[in-house]
Amino acid sequence: MDSNDLTLADQGARARRASRVLATATSSLKDAALQRAARLIEERAGEILLANEKDVRDAGERGATRTALDRLRLDPSRVQSMAAGLRSVAALPDPVGEILDGWVRPNGLRVRRVRVPLGVVGVIYENRPNVTSDAAALCVKSGNAVMLRGSSSTINSNMQIASALREGVRQAGLPEDSVLLVTETSRESAVELMRMRGVIDCLIPRGGHDLVASVIENATVPYVIDGDGNCHVYVDASADLDRAVEIIVNAKMQRPSVCNAAESLLVHADVAADLLPRARARMAGVEMVGDARACAILDGIGRATEKDFATEFLDLKLAVAVVDDLDAAIDHIATYGTGHSEAIVTEDLEAARRFTQEVDAACVVVNASTRFVDGGELGLGAEIGISTQKLHARGPMGLRELTSVKFVLEGEGQIRT
Amino acid sequence: MDSNDLTLADQGARARRASRVLATATSSLKDAALQRAARLIEERAGEILLANEKDVRDAGERGATRTALDRLRLDPSRVQSMAAGLRSVAALPDPVGEILDGWVRPNGLRVRRVRVPLGVVGVIYENRPNVTSDAAALCVKSGNAVMLRGSSSTINSNMQIASALREGVRQAGLPEDSVLLVTETSRESAVELMRMRGVIDCLIPRGGHDLVASVIENATVPYVIDGDGNCHVYVDASADLDRAVEIIVNAKMQRPSVCNAAESLLVHADVAADLLPRARARMAGVEMVGDARACAILDGIGRATEKDFATEFLDLKLAVAVVDDLDAAIDHIATYGTGHSEAIVTEDLEAARRFTQEVDAACVVVNASTRFVDGGELGLGAEIGISTQKLHARGPMGLRELTSVKFVLEGEGQIRT
Repeated sequence: MDSNDLTLADQGARARRASRVLATATSSLKDAALQRAARLIEERAGEILLANEKDVRDAGERGATRTALDRLRLDPSRVQSMAAGLRSVAALPDPVGEILDGWVRPNGLRVRRVRVPLGVVGVIYENRPNVTSDAAALCVKSGNAVMLRGSSSTINSNMQIASALREGVRQAGLPEDSVLLVTETSRESAVELMRMRGVIDCLIPRGGHDLVASVIENATVPYVIDGDGNCHVYVDASADLDRAVEIIVNAKMQRPSVCNAAESLLVHADVAADLLPRARARMAGVEMVGDARACAILDGIGRATEKDFATEFLDLKLAVAVVDDLDAAIDHIATYGTGHSEAIVTEDLEAARRFTQEVDAACVVVNASTRFVDGGELGLGAEIGISTQKLHARGPMGLRELTSVKFVLEGEGQIRT
Repeated sequence: MDSNDLTLADQGARARRASRVLATATSSLKDAALQRAARLIEERAGEILLANEKDVRDAGERGATRTALDRLRLDPSRVQSMAAGLRSVAALPDPVGEILDGWVRPNGLRVRRVRVPLGVVGVIYENRPNVTSDAAALCVKSGNAVMLRGSSSTINSNMQIASALREGVRQAGLPEDSVLLVTETSRESAVELMRMRGVIDCLIPRGGHDLVASVIENATVPYVIDGDGNCHVYVDASADLDRAVEIIVNAKMQRPSVCNAAESLLVHADVAADLLPRARARMAGVEMVGDARACAILDGIGRATEKDFATEFLDLKLAVAVVDDLDAAIDHIATYGTGHSEAIVTEDLEAARRFTQEVDAACVVVNASTRFVDGGELGLGAEIGISTQKLHARGPMGLRELTSVKFVLEGEGQIRT
């Protein structure tokens, strides 16, 4: 029976059974599964591209935007990248079995904490078909079964990709239900997935506001939020302004559509008149809006609203505020920031120390671009998302963040008195 | 204005402001706050006991059970224990600022992961007034503001205790709103607390099924569940039966009302006829119920229902099943266990290895009593609960589990290309 015909509850039961096998599978077996899946993705590139053409055609007929179509569209090089991604995850060290720490109690009881898989991971995502293989690779490598719930617009591509992944896992001698594609793509079924407590050990929603809001409202399963990045660059009075301009330009313009791009620029009043015109001169094409003091320096820019400072533009737009001091910058970030990535440009040791300690965010950056906040750039290997919550994982999430921990106690008959 | 007259939203705003100060407070300051609070608890023992007398009298008039009254009642030695608890938490190492790891990227960017406080912790608990000071101590020490929401039956005791805690924190020069008692104790206000997203960074419900179910259904804030402990002891064919009997008796009888007590006994068929009568002989006062094979060995015990195997009795009752092998024991635990603490008694290396690897629980125990699954017994210092979830914290939670992590990136103008 094709797993695609099963109910969500049936799929959940299958995922749980598979997860018990996968939890104790050796790294060699899991790596072989990913290697075989990579080869099958390559061998079946034709079928995958054909299915993708249908998805793109259907989406086009429904009037999808150019951006949406671009995200959805595969080509031979993107299929090759999926295979390469599977192989690169196979090459990463296996986090499972790591002993975090261990000690002996006075009564001789030996205690250790061991890294273990979560069990079943659910991923709800939108219309990038490569997430199907990327997420599956990270989950399988970390010993988890995965329930993948992509969008309806990607369904034909995803079915082909998932089929290759399942076959690869099966060929390696692991349960093919380690990778399950949820083909029921209604909103109701997404909510059903969010409420499969006892089945899904961790849900990772990868999508926009509406999806995240729905998870927060509806989920009864544990989840990790990959939330907004309303990221700031603060230029301190002591900053090297050449360096500051380069960092601002990079943080805003290098790839404006991503969560670690900067959305607001805060400038110390002492250097605003010098810095702002120089920054503006380097940012052709960027719409700048500012507070009263920024507008007084930058002729002709629009006035920033309260909402502008609270918005993740994900576009060539930048909100600018002039602040009196470091405290005002930290307060502004505390008010409007989303706890993602916050940067300071400064030559002052005390300002750097205070900013890194007092700004409450997943990542604080001194004298570098916010764009480095990324699993690959930080050297974590592949990432399954960037957590903006404080529990479990914070910042870029790699294989380690797809694991839990287990206490193991060993004795020789110790009892408590 | 007394903090008790504020709305929950006002209290939340105060807690957030306090949390920003507390987040960067030195260990010396935080320890001084706990030391001063301890002294104030002692100095005000008279007022605390008087308030507690009123709570006990009121609860008695409402027909509270003897157990409930016992939990609620303070006496001079219990007040002294609260002060001692504050001092012992002050003596623990401060987890904040610990560098978990750090490395340098090829472009010279320096990366480190630093332990930071969560921010504001919410604790919803029932009628033990000592939780007020125990939870506050752990939160303040780990740099978190805390919103304490005890039950209405403990309100007079809690107000006195919280007042001493707030005064102690204030005397040490930290914001008194680091410790806030929520005096509105309706069910609606509990749900309101569960939905203060953006205010509460971590909610810890310490209570029974109804409270946990309400959190799972209603909470929009992140939470850690301290859930049921339907713990098993499995006696393998190879077990030292003398040792097995001692462990069973200890796990069931030493303190039956707690989550790490055993609720079910699984015995390998090869040793059941030998072990079960010996175990029963040592467990006078324990009601045993069994499956068909256990009943055939133990004359006169009741037949265990499906529900018995799924129940955390928290009482002198034990469900017994005879299993064919280790696989059957592991399957039984996977079916009925709650992922808390599971023990095996065995002399067989392979059985011990398989049990520790394949049983999915916060704690797996080889040849010792499940009663050791406790923060104090394992050497973690005080504990704020035992997590039965897999995200963030699993097993006994101490100071470390009341923290998050922050990436700090330091460069000299690095930009992404």
